[in-house]
Amino acid sequence: MPDDEGTGRITLAEVARQAGVSISTVSKVLNGRQDVAPPTRIKVERLLETHAYRRTTRSSNEAPLIEIVFHELDSVWALELIRGVENVAKANHASVVLTESGTRHSPGPDWIDGVLQRRPLGVVLVFSALPQQVKHQLRARSIPFVIVDPAGDPDPDVPSVGSANWSGGLAATRHLIDLGHRRIGIISGPGDMLCSLARLDGYRSAMGMAGLPADPGLVQFGDFHVEGGYERGTAMLTMPDRPTAIFAGSDLQALGVLEAARVLGLRVPHDLSVVGYDDVQLARWSSPALTTVHQPLRQMAEEAVQLLLRLRAGRPSATRLELATSLVVRNSTAPPPAA
Amino acid sequence: MPDDEGTGRITLAEVARQAGVSISTVSKVLNGRQDVAPPTRIKVERLLETHAYRRTTRSSNEAPLIEIVFHELDSVWALELIRGVENVAKANHASVVLTESGTRHSPGPDWIDGVLQRRPLGVVLVFSALPQQVKHQLRARSIPFVIVDPAGDPDPDVPSVGSANWSGGLAATRHLIDLGHRRIGIISGPGDMLCSLARLDGYRSAMGMAGLPADPGLVQFGDFHVEGGYERGTAMLTMPDRPTAIFAGSDLQALGVLEAARVLGLRVPHDLSVVGYDDVQLARWSSPALTTVHQPLRQMAEEAVQLLLRLRAGRPSATRLELATSLVVRNSTAPPPAA
Repeated sequence: MPDDEGTGRITLAEVARQAGVSISTVSKVLNGRQDVAPPTRIKVERLLETHAYRRTTRSSNEAPLIEIVFHELDSVWALELIRGVENVAKANHASVVLTESGTRHSPGPDWIDGVLQRRPLGVVLVFSALPQQVKHQLRARSIPFVIVDPAGDPDPDVPSVGSANWSGGLAATRHLIDLGHRRIGIISGPGDMLCSLARLDGYRSAMGMAGLPADPGLVQFGDFHVEGGYERGTAMLTMPDRPTAIFAGSDLQALGVLEAARVLGLRVPHDLSVVGYDDVQLARWSSPALTTVHQPLRQMAEEAVQLLLRLRAGRPSATRLELATSLVVRNSTAPPPAA
Repeated sequence: MPDDEGTGRITLAEVARQAGVSISTVSKVLNGRQDVAPPTRIKVERLLETHAYRRTTRSSNEAPLIEIVFHELDSVWALELIRGVENVAKANHASVVLTESGTRHSPGPDWIDGVLQRRPLGVVLVFSALPQQVKHQLRARSIPFVIVDPAGDPDPDVPSVGSANWSGGLAATRHLIDLGHRRIGIISGPGDMLCSLARLDGYRSAMGMAGLPADPGLVQFGDFHVEGGYERGTAMLTMPDRPTAIFAGSDLQALGVLEAARVLGLRVPHDLSVVGYDDVQLARWSSPALTTVHQPLRQMAEEAVQLLLRLRAGRPSATRLELATSLVVRNSTAPPPAA
């Protein structure tokens, strides 16, 4: 029974005694087995968590695993994040287990049992929040977890890695102002995501600092999808006094704005400047290539795994890491057409 | 020792006797442990393979795994393939392990030990070929494997899933001919990949059947990247008698051709029609949205996992599955400009 080797802390036998169950039941709980009554399971987990029971890792006979859990694998973010996790996992001779589960805000109930059975080195979650019960279950088994949170809405109770959304919004808008634009539209992300609000506030601050009015008609929330960018872009570009530049809030929305411009016969960047956000691969590949705010998704995932490994090694670490964003100027922005 | 439960076939003890080693050594070989001399390992593997030793699956205590191994995770194909594997894995309560390893043609030597230790239900490989030794190692442990092979160059010795490249090239070219184009260029894939040759032959057959000459100046091999499409597209579009349509061989190359057209002041589809290949997400999102040949990558990956599960269950199965491709008409193609 390698699980209770000496850490100077509580043993499985002691947990079993306190919970009034057998050692084998405690072991089943640790291994995520289904044949334990939920109240017993919860009692054992609380004891393990309270006493900071330190489980040993998988035997050296087994290949170490790092888990990444997504809400939406179809996101353009997904591949960059997988890439980052794989980079650090490979360097540490670990393999990557990938799961899609739950909603934008938290993982579904189905994945946790698998995680408990696989006993990974740690778990990277691409979500804003984690249900309390999941935190208890992972902590009871000493499985470290870190949230990669491009949405910018971290649970203060969980270590997380994000990026500087407000600064990104500021940099995008300043770039357009510096080129000479005055009527600048913004299509931000969904109104219920903090990253959208932060980028919008960055835009507002840049406009305010330049003494430019923020026309409410030029401020829209979006959905981070191409179609949404197309619809909102078309609406803005058919206004009587249309903007000469649009900060599109995501690269996908920027692609939608490019299509809106094409359909309306506007040339980018001659008639209209467009700035994206994220700098995923397709930003380089669009025609024209997008000026955009680089969100270091790969690096965020790499930092998340490094953080996991530090937590696993018992080294104290910051609970919130925010990486810098930076403007990448390509071919979709230029000075406004002469009035 | 669950490994030698009765299948009426050879036991570990018998393999150990024939190899002249201990049972524990045979067990180490099965588990991919490194502390066995290579000649011993090879001898034991050959015996296991010869006698079709049937290993039991991981204990029910462990979560089942399906592995997917890529050469290049950055490929636009990757996410669609992961998606397909994840779909079928989830339906079978298995998790997906992702590895990047090796070259375009075969996986590197580093991944096999991990696979042997993890004992997955099966392995999906996104490669053209597998080294003989790897085949022996997987077969010796009864780990089924299937190649997903968009490159269309299957090892006849390994079950594989591909798609109909020749038909795809034919359909793309016929669409352009039906629109009235006569001077049609092609930028195919790399000259050393069978899929490139098949698509090119489809183009040649369509041109031949329509009685159109295949101008050698309008036939290029490419590299499946945006930059390559841009360079070759620019070269074709600056010819004295430029084509009115280009079949770009991949969606990425098509994006490069769109950019070449934009830079040269040609409007797509008014002045130039462009057809892609693959129908990855960005084909829908480009401006204009790409007419392209749909390669059912997600479905190919789903079929590969289904095939794995059938092989695992001992059910005989086709060793080569080729899924149909289909033309998707969007906004990048139109009749040629009036002469």
